[in-house]
Amino acid sequence: MTSANSPLLLSNVRLPDDRHEHGGETVSVSVVGGRIEAIGPNVAPPPDALVEDGGGALLLPGFVEGHTHLDKTHWGRDWYVNEVGPNLTDRIANEREFRKSSGHDAGVQSLALSRAFLAAGTTRLRTHVDIDTDAGLRYLEGVLGTRDTLADVLDMQIVAFPQSGLLIRPGTDELLGNALAAGADVLGALDPSLIDGDPVGSLNATFALAERYGKPIDIHLHEPGEIGAFTLKLLLDRVEAMGMQGRVVVSHAFCLGALPEPTALLERVARLRVALLTSAPPSRTVPPLKRCRELGITIFGGNDGIRDTWTPFGIPDMLERAMFIGMRYDLRRDDDLAVAFDCVSHAAAQGCGFADYGLHAGARADLVLVDAPTLAHAVVARPVRKLVVANGRIVARNGALAAAA
Amino acid sequence: MTSANSPLLLSNVRLPDDRHEHGGETVSVSVVGGRIEAIGPNVAPPPDALVEDGGGALLLPGFVEGHTHLDKTHWGRDWYVNEVGPNLTDRIANEREFRKSSGHDAGVQSLALSRAFLAAGTTRLRTHVDIDTDAGLRYLEGVLGTRDTLADVLDMQIVAFPQSGLLIRPGTDELLGNALAAGADVLGALDPSLIDGDPVGSLNATFALAERYGKPIDIHLHEPGEIGAFTLKLLLDRVEAMGMQGRVVVSHAFCLGALPEPTALLERVARLRVALLTSAPPSRTVPPLKRCRELGITIFGGNDGIRDTWTPFGIPDMLERAMFIGMRYDLRRDDDLAVAFDCVSHAAAQGCGFADYGLHAGARADLVLVDAPTLAHAVVARPVRKLVVANGRIVARNGALAAAA
Repeated sequence: MTSANSPLLLSNVRLPDDRHEHGGETVSVSVVGGRIEAIGPNVAPPPDALVEDGGGALLLPGFVEGHTHLDKTHWGRDWYVNEVGPNLTDRIANEREFRKSSGHDAGVQSLALSRAFLAAGTTRLRTHVDIDTDAGLRYLEGVLGTRDTLADVLDMQIVAFPQSGLLIRPGTDELLGNALAAGADVLGALDPSLIDGDPVGSLNATFALAERYGKPIDIHLHEPGEIGAFTLKLLLDRVEAMGMQGRVVVSHAFCLGALPEPTALLERVARLRVALLTSAPPSRTVPPLKRCRELGITIFGGNDGIRDTWTPFGIPDMLERAMFIGMRYDLRRDDDLAVAFDCVSHAAAQGCGFADYGLHAGARADLVLVDAPTLAHAVVARPVRKLVVANGRIVARNGALAAAA
Repeated sequence: MTSANSPLLLSNVRLPDDRHEHGGETVSVSVVGGRIEAIGPNVAPPPDALVEDGGGALLLPGFVEGHTHLDKTHWGRDWYVNEVGPNLTDRIANEREFRKSSGHDAGVQSLALSRAFLAAGTTRLRTHVDIDTDAGLRYLEGVLGTRDTLADVLDMQIVAFPQSGLLIRPGTDELLGNALAAGADVLGALDPSLIDGDPVGSLNATFALAERYGKPIDIHLHEPGEIGAFTLKLLLDRVEAMGMQGRVVVSHAFCLGALPEPTALLERVARLRVALLTSAPPSRTVPPLKRCRELGITIFGGNDGIRDTWTPFGIPDMLERAMFIGMRYDLRRDDDLAVAFDCVSHAAAQGCGFADYGLHAGARADLVLVDAPTLAHAVVARPVRKLVVANGRIVARNGALAAAA
């Protein structure tokens, strides 16, 4: 995947209307040492630069996947016939059995899906990786291998995720600690009330682990309505008590879409700088996107699982996820579709804490070109990625990984 | 678009697992005079047949679009920057003004979108066409021209649709009658309570027109919850009183997804053989798909508008719409995804009354090939259409209209 990190001039590309000093203009981008050196209408090629004519294509920042499960996917494998029962616990048990018995290899699979993400323009990615007492750290080791292989081009955060529960499967706590010591960046958690059955005990264990290893938290909170709000309040108490402001993500947070009057709770989420992740599922309630943004909450997007034992749906394309976000929140205006795109770009970088993000001098050179007249068109039409640059390297052309990659 | 309707043998194709005597097997299909002559493992080529090797691809019946608005789309035109207000009435007024002043041509646009539908495997289609006192029958004339142009390959039903209201815009009633006399197949209607403001008067006018012209009805019912249920009951009364059983479609029917106890109403819908259309919108309540099917209600799918002043979303791909239906109803199992596909194939043909539909001898030869291991995979991956046969003619290959078309 590594190719030479030589200087680059990407000429004749158009910036989206918003966010940029030169928004709407045709510009060039110079890239040196994997960073954007300059971006604007009159940019000179760096010495010895490769010059790439963008052909008037729309320039977007590399996309950010805020929540996926690289270790679970069947991407590129034979079709998995889904005959799973309807409950969360059915899906958890089914998957654990499948992974034990099927030869599913988290290293191979995470690499296949990561490469597909890159080809479609995603250059930063947060993945949750199952840690449980059957598998131990085996899936983590596979994903760490993928991170290593793609280190030059894909900026990957790994969440150590207790998919089978924390308290209800004794020994998981220690494994999560080992995972954090072995290279996971973030501590995961799962439904402290409805899976672990002990919200106080489960949250206390999670926050204690996070403190011991000095890691942020990203919790899956599927719990609906009132019970979800109850759990969330307990979580916020601990964010406040333990000084974890700005270091916690709540993923899914279905409950925030189901409360008759969520404002007080949302204000507290904002005050404690807790970020929210949504995959914008059409069949569940979702946090109110615009209200969250008005209150200053960072709310961002992710695919969740892609083609695994949980779900047949999903492709590693953040433009398609932006479209789903647009559809779920009924965003029809062009300026609203820019918000949907923000969820898979700037807001996701902010929520996950990916540094040096964006289309400005000094940022990491993660660039995507698409043939689209406007950003809104790019979201709804999801055109093939004409060019993808990751960390200054050309990694894909016309939807396929580049030969050098 | 017409190409010679010569005999055809489509060999080496796989049937989906369900519905077919030879489900799951590799078969051949012989086509004579635009009809399937035989389908099975040992089918001889008809005399003088063109023989087409399907390369082991999955064979699906031509797709059915149950509800779209061909006359409104900007497909193939410059991007329309959407700055429209959030209310239904904003959108109606904005569109009427846009169409008056922009040079938007319903004939050109409906042809562009219809051709894109064909290239993606849709061979039967129901479109609503705006009839109002500003435009008169102008949009209808454009769409009638498209129907004519594509008559050999695309089976199109036209609904005369009072987008700006019926009673509230005097003169619309007569225009609708003229539209039915001029070639529209179905009488449309719109929100008798919340747009027309007089549910009894509006429904009475609609049913009287339908009776006078001997046409079925397809009504847009966006009205939510209790008011929608109220209007729907008034509608069902008239279906019963006027003997319109089996001749009425209720499109959208958001109210049926919002009632605490819809069973009695659904049972009456079933008894009166009223069919339901859903685009499965993620941001609205939707009729309960499985419950409807259990009660024997025909519920089917459609895109609704595609890239117009109402919505930037949508592409003319019924596999993608089946995926949206799957996502909206949380259909994850392979057998459930077959239900999602049914909504854009057999159930849609049933709901609209398209005759001779399906993969059996005697049916119209509308055939689609995709490279997919299973039907479920075809729905979630939406692979390019390898071959499309419409009324016995090869109309598209690899996603593009065939040279002869």
